[in-house]
Amino acid sequence: MHPIKISGIGQTAFGELWDKSLSDLCQEAVEKALADAKIGIEDIDQVFVGNMLGGETSQQSHLGALIADLFGLSIPSVRIEGACASGGLAVYHAVQSLLSGQSKTVLVLGVEKMTDFCAEKIGSLLMQAAAEEERTAEATFPSLYALMAQAHMAEFGTSREQLALASVLAHHNALQNPLAQFQKKITVSDVLASASVADPLRLLDCSPITDGAAALILQKRDHTPVDNEACIIAQTCATDRLGLAERKTITGLKATQQSSQKIFAAANIKPNQVDIAEIHDCFSIAAIMAVEDIGFCQKGTGGQYIEDIVTGKKNSLSLNPSGGLKACGHPVGATGVKQIAEVALQLQGRAADRQQKNLKYGLTHNVGGTGATCTMHLLTNSLKDFHSR
Amino acid sequence: MHPIKISGIGQTAFGELWDKSLSDLCQEAVEKALADAKIGIEDIDQVFVGNMLGGETSQQSHLGALIADLFGLSIPSVRIEGACASGGLAVYHAVQSLLSGQSKTVLVLGVEKMTDFCAEKIGSLLMQAAAEEERTAEATFPSLYALMAQAHMAEFGTSREQLALASVLAHHNALQNPLAQFQKKITVSDVLASASVADPLRLLDCSPITDGAAALILQKRDHTPVDNEACIIAQTCATDRLGLAERKTITGLKATQQSSQKIFAAANIKPNQVDIAEIHDCFSIAAIMAVEDIGFCQKGTGGQYIEDIVTGKKNSLSLNPSGGLKACGHPVGATGVKQIAEVALQLQGRAADRQQKNLKYGLTHNVGGTGATCTMHLLTNSLKDFHSR
Repeated sequence: MHPIKISGIGQTAFGELWDKSLSDLCQEAVEKALADAKIGIEDIDQVFVGNMLGGETSQQSHLGALIADLFGLSIPSVRIEGACASGGLAVYHAVQSLLSGQSKTVLVLGVEKMTDFCAEKIGSLLMQAAAEEERTAEATFPSLYALMAQAHMAEFGTSREQLALASVLAHHNALQNPLAQFQKKITVSDVLASASVADPLRLLDCSPITDGAAALILQKRDHTPVDNEACIIAQTCATDRLGLAERKTITGLKATQQSSQKIFAAANIKPNQVDIAEIHDCFSIAAIMAVEDIGFCQKGTGGQYIEDIVTGKKNSLSLNPSGGLKACGHPVGATGVKQIAEVALQLQGRAADRQQKNLKYGLTHNVGGTGATCTMHLLTNSLKDFHSR
Repeated sequence: MHPIKISGIGQTAFGELWDKSLSDLCQEAVEKALADAKIGIEDIDQVFVGNMLGGETSQQSHLGALIADLFGLSIPSVRIEGACASGGLAVYHAVQSLLSGQSKTVLVLGVEKMTDFCAEKIGSLLMQAAAEEERTAEATFPSLYALMAQAHMAEFGTSREQLALASVLAHHNALQNPLAQFQKKITVSDVLASASVADPLRLLDCSPITDGAAALILQKRDHTPVDNEACIIAQTCATDRLGLAERKTITGLKATQQSSQKIFAAANIKPNQVDIAEIHDCFSIAAIMAVEDIGFCQKGTGGQYIEDIVTGKKNSLSLNPSGGLKACGHPVGATGVKQIAEVALQLQGRAADRQQKNLKYGLTHNVGGTGATCTMHLLTNSLKDFHSR
């Protein structure tokens, strides 16, 4: 595909932002992205909003029109929803819009306002993303991912400590991210001592409930050489059964595996060429499955792979430098957009204290539900081989 | 733009379908569209689902994944939401996907399951599409459109009887549509004698609460000549302020006016060349404003224009042959898809008892909220001038 340039990036703080409404979050992220791109709102010709729960948590759906309203726009503006993959899907369809020629400069906004509700109510609303039989059985996302963790531990010997290390890594990385929800170092002992949520998952295995927004300005990349650029060079999306009971295995996500195979084939690179990745670590077990399903390591070795990163035995891949969903926070519709924002900032060399070195290829991995939707984006700052088709 | 061919059409009955779930409606519409296109589900490579309230009414969001689940798919599948314009927007973004080259055969499904709730609850949920100040003031959509009706009557002398005639026309047309919710002739007296909802609007001025689904299979049109085809040759979308109080005038919808100007410019035809149109008549006043805002008649003369159609003085335009939202029914996310399905069936000469004659150009007009979103599609069965770009 024709490379798509990240022209502007804006992000609010992620956290419990009780003084900010859904509209406030939208406005802040968009204004930051426009300023970053050094363009005005009048330069935008289409808007894509990734959001899951605006109707339920803020009594506001029709978020495409809300953004038009906030900024006085009259252009096409739409909400894209695919549960926790809403943000990545918004980028996916924004890119298709650019490739179609029906737009030249698009704004993608991911946003979620979640903390005004008690966690139990939010947990129930999030189950709208799951299968009916899971919802009516009163399963929750922690309980569903706990089943995957149990299966993974039984089949591959993944240890309880390895699960904890995924959270330790996330919190370690978030220390350098001023926009992250948690700026707090944790240890394996902290994770193991935290309250049990759904065995074997404990509180510190779970990503939090978060308010936040992230915005991107996207354009087709032209032939003018630019320093420190970041471009999307491939994108994929795959789906799977909604419910775990309908899948052949629950020790991995088929949608991630398929999305991954396709994206590396499309970009003609191998997983081990990826220098930096933002993966969907909604739970510690999700991070372990993701590194396997993406192809960073063999199936069953994800626990060891993450352990090796934490202990410094493996430094080739920078994993979730933002802090991931676990520590940067997980405002559902914003997450997929933030992942691309983070990878782009890193590739552009603008990631401040958490800047990683020697980067060429970056990957984002955004999952909806327990893996019924997966969307991935591959970015690079090195387009030597680029020729427009 | 490159013409997009309507390759398959499927629609459920519209109405109070208490024996059918959201999934049942999806399945039926999709199976009918596939059979109509004479292809299998494996031929589809992207899915777009237009839906507003699945999360609220069926506790099921993530409808892209739901469709993948129902049909065993692993392809990209997403929900598109823009209030009552969700269906038209789903087509809009499906077309962009085809134009981008990232898909070759797409499925667009519009669906809404509304009648399991009491009307009061649905009315409250629908207000998620409106502005916060309208929602918190406990306005309803009938009350907001009533304000527009009052303003239109005061400014242009539109009569109460002309409002009624819009509903009379809709019910007249729906008599020939076996899938319509209401197969019942009504008179001006019936409308005037129906219960007052929000002055001057009465029950029979208002579109109903409806269950239903409609599906389309879309592909880029190739150069092979085909008999009885229908192609989308232009599409537009425009947005406006969410709330009526923020608009300069409420006797018309700016989003419709802008969308209309752009679509006729893009297709290089005039409004009077349109032979058939499905317009968004959620309320009788909406039909009157729409024919003005689209450009079928001068601003202020919409009441007379519809009166002339009903009395047979004007036969050039076939308006809402399906029965429109008023009589065919208004399952919110399905409406925009059904409008295109109806116009395509008519252009293809497959509309059975309600087949209109001498058709070349057809228009659809789908509105979200009180006009904060408008999306329009222009179709033709006559592509003599077509050359691919």
